Parts: sequence; C-alpha cells; structure tokens
Amino acid sequence: MTPKLSQLQPDYLIAPRWLVPVVPHAQVLENHLVAVTGDTILAIVDQQQADELWPDIKRVVLAEHVLLPGLINTHCHSAMTLFRGFADDLPLHDWLYDNIWPAEQRWVGPDFVRDGTELAVVEMLRSGTTCFSDNYFFPDVAAAVAVKAGMRVTVGLLVIDLPTAWAADADEYFRRGIEVHQNFLSEPLVRTAFAPHAPYSVSDIQLERIALLADEMDIPIHMHLHESPWEIEDSMEKYGIRPMARLEKIGMLNPRLMAVHMTQVSDHEIELLAQRGVHVLHCPESNLKLASGFCPVHKLQTAGVNITIATDGAASNNDLDLLGEAQTASFLAKGLSANPRALPVADALEMVTINAAKALGMEAEIGSIEVGKQADFCALDFSAPESHPVHDVLSQIIYASHRQQVSDVWVAGERLLEQGKLTRMDMADIISRADQWGERLQRHRKEHQQLA
Amino acid sequence: MTPKLSQLQPDYLIAPRWLVPVVPHAQVLENHLVAVTGDTILAIVDQQQADELWPDIKRVVLAEHVLLPGLINTHCHSAMTLFRGFADDLPLHDWLYDNIWPAEQRWVGPDFVRDGTELAVVEMLRSGTTCFSDNYFFPDVAAAVAVKAGMRVTVGLLVIDLPTAWAADADEYFRRGIEVHQNFLSEPLVRTAFAPHAPYSVSDIQLERIALLADEMDIPIHMHLHESPWEIEDSMEKYGIRPMARLEKIGMLNPRLMAVHMTQVSDHEIELLAQRGVHVLHCPESNLKLASGFCPVHKLQTAGVNITIATDGAASNNDLDLLGEAQTASFLAKGLSANPRALPVADALEMVTINAAKALGMEAEIGSIEVGKQADFCALDFSAPESHPVHDVLSQIIYASHRQQVSDVWVAGERLLEQGKLTRMDMADIISRADQWGERLQRHRKEHQQLA
Repeated sequence: MTPKLSQLQPDYLIAPRWLVPVVPHAQVLENHLVAVTGDTILAIVDQQQADELWPDIKRVVLAEHVLLPGLINTHCHSAMTLFRGFADDLPLHDWLYDNIWPAEQRWVGPDFVRDGTELAVVEMLRSGTTCFSDNYFFPDVAAAVAVKAGMRVTVGLLVIDLPTAWAADADEYFRRGIEVHQNFLSEPLVRTAFAPHAPYSVSDIQLERIALLADEMDIPIHMHLHESPWEIEDSMEKYGIRPMARLEKIGMLNPRLMAVHMTQVSDHEIELLAQRGVHVLHCPESNLKLASGFCPVHKLQTAGVNITIATDGAASNNDLDLLGEAQTASFLAKGLSANPRALPVADALEMVTINAAKALGMEAEIGSIEVGKQADFCALDFSAPESHPVHDVLSQIIYASHRQQVSDVWVAGERLLEQGKLTRMDMADIISRADQWGERLQRHRKEHQQLA
Repeated sequence: MTPKLSQLQPDYLIAPRWLVPVVPHAQVLENHLVAVTGDTILAIVDQQQADELWPDIKRVVLAEHVLLPGLINTHCHSAMTLFRGFADDLPLHDWLYDNIWPAEQRWVGPDFVRDGTELAVVEMLRSGTTCFSDNYFFPDVAAAVAVKAGMRVTVGLLVIDLPTAWAADADEYFRRGIEVHQNFLSEPLVRTAFAPHAPYSVSDIQLERIALLADEMDIPIHMHLHESPWEIEDSMEKYGIRPMARLEKIGMLNPRLMAVHMTQVSDHEIELLAQRGVHVLHCPESNLKLASGFCPVHKLQTAGVNITIATDGAASNNDLDLLGEAQTASFLAKGLSANPRALPVADALEMVTINAAKALGMEAEIGSIEVGKQADFCALDFSAPESHPVHDVLSQIIYASHRQQVSDVWVAGERLLEQGKLTRMDMADIISRADQWGERLQRHRKEHQQLA
C-alpha cells in the first residue's frame, strides 16, 4: 500500500520558480515543490499542498530558477581535460595517432587520470551534469574520483589492441576491467560498461568476448562507431564490410550498444539501428571540430532511434558543457535537415536527460523528476538580463541559457553545488594540479620539437 | 614628430596576464601593458618599460585574464531581445510574416525600442561587445541608448516597402533616416549606415536612391542578402535574376556593401563578392536555427572575401553572444568544408574584431589593440577550472571560453564593465521593463489566439 503524503516526512523541499520534470514530455510547472528524503524524490506537490503538509520542513527557495533533472553526459573522456587545446584543427586520425596517443603513452597513469578526472568532474558539476559515462584508462581511478566527489558515473572498461599503461594485452584488459566491475559492485554511484575503443582498434575475437561478457555481467557496451569516413574505408579494406555489418555478425547490435558518433550512416543502417534498439550517442561539436561528418539526427529520430547528446572529451570539443552541446545539436539538426522544426527544445532536453538514462539502462532511477527516482537535479538561474523576458521556459533553457547559469546541483539528494559554490571539492587544489600537468606537457612538447 | 614615450603621461595602464592585440595576426603577448589616455591607446609596453616610465600611474591588474580588442557585432536587431523565444522552430518566412511582423506592427514604437535596445546593450557589454551595427526601427532611439550607455554603434537607416511605425512611405524613410544621420554627426560614438531591409522588401528605385545617397553621405549599406532559398526563388519570379545580379545592375556591389547571411551563393558569386570588395556578415546560429542554408565561409575566405561573424537578433538566435557565435562559426566551417583546418581560432577572432571594423569602414579607429586606436577592450577571466591548463591562449578563447568569463569592458577609454559589474546602467530597472513587455506580448498573443 502506498503511504499517504501526510504520513511522509521529507528531509527538505526544493521550491523553484519553474519545474521541468522532463517526464511528462515538455511539461513546465509553476509553483510546484519537490520533496526529497535521503537520496530519493518523495513527492511533487503544489504550493498549497506543501504549505498544508510540510509547513516546517526546510525549503531551498530558488525564486528565479528552473529546476531540471541532472544532466547526463553519455560520452566523455574525462581526464582529457588536461589535453584541452593541446592539439587543435586536425583531422581525427592525425589528432589521435600523431598527437594524443604519443602524449598519452608518455604521461597517462593513475595520477594523470585522477587529476584530469577531478578537473572534469568540477567542470561537469558546474555545468549541471550529475552523471557521466566515461571512457578512458584507469577506470578504477575515475570511479574513485566520482565517489569522492559524490557524482554518478558509468566507467568504461577499456579494451583496445594496443599495450598501454592500463594493460599490456587483451587478457589484462579483461582481467583488470572485470576487477573494476567487481570492486565497485556495492557502490551505489558507480556502474560499469564495456568500452571497446573502436572498430579499427579492436579485433573480432575481443569483440566477441565483450558481447558474451556484457550479457553475463548485464552491462552496456560503449563504443566509438562510424565516426569518420576513414573508419569506414579502413574497415572495407581490412574486413570487406562496414563496421556496423561486423558488429551485426558478432551479435553486438542490440539495446546494450551505446554507439558513439555515427556520422557515416546509410538509410538501411538507420533502419537497422532502430530495429535493434541501438542507442546513438551524438557528439555534434566534436564531429564538427574534427570535421568527421554529420550525424543525421533528424532521420534517426524519425526512425525511432533513441538518441542522446554528449560532449566527447575536452581535447576534441573543447569543453564538457552539455547545455551548450544540446544547443549546437538542435541548431545543427535544423540546418542539416533544412527543417527548422527538427530537434525542438523539449526533445533536445530529453536527449541530455531521460534518453541518456535509457542508453545507460538506468531510466528507472534517473533522467527525470519523478516520484521514487534518485534526487539528481540541476537548477538554472534566470535572474540575469540574458534570460528576460521569458516567453518560453524550454526555449530559454536550450536556445539562450549558458552553463554559468547553473547555480545548484544535487546528486542522490546531496547538494554538491550551492549557489555556484562547490560543497565537496577543493577547486584551488584541482586547478593547481591541472596547471602542473599543463607545464609538464608543454615542456615535453618543446623538448620533443627540438629533437625532431 | 612622434613624442618619446617618456614625454607621455597615460591616465592608466591595463596589465593583463596575456595580451592579444589581433594585429599582428595571432600574436599573444605576456607581461605587456596597455597605456591609455582619454579615449586613445597611447602605448603598448613591456613590464620593465612600464616600471621605468610610469611607476606611479594607476594600473588595472588583470592577473589571470586575457585582454582583447572589444568585440564588434556587425549585425543585430537589438530591440528584438524582447522577442527572444517568442516564435521558435519556424522557417524564416513564417517566422517573419506570421509572427514577428504582426507583433511588431502592434507593439513597436520608441518605448519598445528604447527598452529592448537597453536590454541588448546590457547583454552585449556583459559579453565583451563594445560596438554593434544595428538594424531596426527608430534608429534615433537606439543611437540615444548607445550614447547613454557609452557604447559604440552604427545605426541602420531602415528602408522597406511597407508602412511601419517608423515611416509611412519611402520618402518618409529617407527623410527620417537622413535626419538621424545629421542629428548624430557630432556624436563620436555614433555612425550610420543605410539599411535596406532585403531584396524581397525593397524595390529597385529605392535601392538606386540608397546607392547614390550612401556615396554622397559616405556611409556603408547594411542589407540582408541571399539569406534563404525562398529569397532566391522570389527574385527569380519577380525579376528573372538573382538578388546579387539585381544589386550588380544597380551598382551596389562594392566595399560599401555589408551583405548579411549569404547562405545561397554560387562559385561565380563568390568570385564577384571578392572582386568587388563586398563584406559578408556571417550569422551561423541564425542560419542554422531558421534552417536558411549554409554560408560557405571557407570558400569565401579562400577567395579573399572579408568576412565578419555576427549574432543577428535575439529573436532568431537566441542570444547576442559573439564569442559563442565565433565558436559555432569555426566548428561549422570545419564541418561543412570537411576540413578541420578551416577557420582556425586566430581567423575567427579577427572576424569579430578587425574584419568587422573593416566592414564598418572603421579599421583606422577600432578592431585591434594598436597605438593611436580607440581604447575599446574586453577582458576574459581565465581563473575558473574550465580554463585550465592553458596550452594555447587563442584556442582557449574561441573553443573553450564562454561569455560569462568577460570581466571587464572599456569603450573609448571608459570602463563600462568592472569585475563583472556594469558601471553606468541600472540592470534591475532594465530587467523590470523587459518583463513588462514580456507580459504585454504574452497577453496580446493569448487574446489573439482566443479570437482566432
């Protein structure tokens, strides 16, 4: 039996000017409060109910704010914040093979990942992101950073056919990955996903292992797919088929698969993605900046594919600003499809919240403000002149707001950002460590250039 | 004879961490100071020179900031900030004819323009813009707002084949326009440009008058051109030729012309734009959002056309954020041309500073930090975690900075934004008036919908 509201005792109420729960679609509530107990949303009530039921419960009044579910970033490489601006204006292949991988080989270890992920977590929290799906070396370190920060994460268990500081060969990648999975099983904020790097860097035999293990462990598979024309050519040369066809043969095209980028995609492939329930993780700014191609978001959406918007790493974007990414995604979808009605604001907002939760298999817990879900919120401050007048709250969020308007963030009921101030993290210390890495990387690059 | 530095006495020095003068191309200086007297840049000196020459002169220390020339927004409709979010997700024609024009007909007058322009000026100053080229009704009111705010403006002298609150017929548009031009001749912050609305809304006879008068008055011509496929079709139907060909016959293709949008453009037209020295005012976010088409920036740049980046009005974009627009322009140019080297950061920065000054015929006065030019600056604060580490200052400005990092702004030597606070304008009053317009517009729309 559901208890009556009057029998419930919330820890606190949040009283925003506007409440956008995301589910139901496009709803904007005024004069509504959210009641929270522990890590859970207890109730959504109107002003009168709140006054009658809980006159003495602590209220967080957000008088000129809109309260949203916490944003969910389905694809990033957190620690790569330390490479922000390190190599710009290059095609994906040169960027990766000639710049990023050599630098990673030299520098990446647990300390680098800790410092870079902390920098990323600070940036994400300050921009309203409460959950991120990470894809990098040392996922154990990234998970530990998230736990320390109080943030929600799905860490990728990397597999790649290259020896790195994280693992020497396939067996070690799997062994260490499964270890990470097991070590964090009891940690409520941490999930895992398999993260085979890309079709050009992981062989069939490892992909088959991943497909099997992901079923056994019941976790998603997070993979770069059809990112650039080069990837397709490479696959045609090596395998005689396109990467998606390879994954089809291996049995990987199913709702576990989070396919990142998908800029090269035929109408037949769009149909297949829809039929198989594959999730597409769209990173418009990274695709534009690396000139990788265009993900046909409007076509994918029309076909019924679940799409999320993600930032990619700060080395290729160059920020972790999900609100900005949603705006770019909406604008680009309209331009590309020559249809100004494409990707309207309510849909763009779903792509950084509930759709992202679905991709991660977490839609029962996060992605919307609904009773029983986790208390993950972000609040946007509409008090500045740039947010006046308000003709349309959703339009104002996606088309006119900037991440610096994020004033407050809660994860699992804990307020991690309070009126713009981080409550748990030591920003000065994090910045100082980031700068030290910046100096090391620059010094090394100069020495390297002198030798060359 | 140029006086020696030691004979000069600056009013104050600005001491930023980094100085990006824009001219010379891509230069980044460290430990340099800018000396200002009155409204003019007196000198750029290094730390040691400053200490020797002017140990006692007041210094504005910007310890973690980059100092740039003030940004120049070559195309906006300032007062339309009051329509931000009023009509989204529509094609240009429906947006204009069914939504914006009816609302303008009902509401636009001097009060609307004053309140909307003040809101826009606040938004622009807070985002680093020191000069804007405006295109709206009641340019006298917009000019007065700019003067009151201490901001630099080129107001458009509107001509359109429609009776509006500003003028009843062609003769009145010209009479009032020329009056505005004359009334502000002695005001150093104000310039004028002719602003024929668009090829589909201004007849040949008026365009011929404008071409003549612009030469006589020695002012630019600021006009929407080749914005959408519909505009081209309309011209082919009515005139049998494309709009650019019409302007060619009239003699308007020359360095006076600031051609806004240019999303529909053949290779021949690109050559012609370059040969004739026409300036292209590129508004990527407006073009994307209205799905008007794509301006081929990379091709135009390769052909040698002077390109500026502008925001367009907040009703179609939906903000007046030039830094964000420059980022979008750079990303989009790379994506469209399938070339990640297209529109690199130094070029993008020029398109919102020195190129914009050239388009306005003001490159001798503004657009770069050079001795003898006007003291128009903006400072970006790099102290937040999102700006660390700094591998590349220019990349950090264009690819990773947001307008809220703008901390300080000077126009003609006067500090209009000081550590994030406006020094001249009453923000609360401006917001309150904007909200009143918001309510009026919403009430009217509801009544209108009930009648329909």
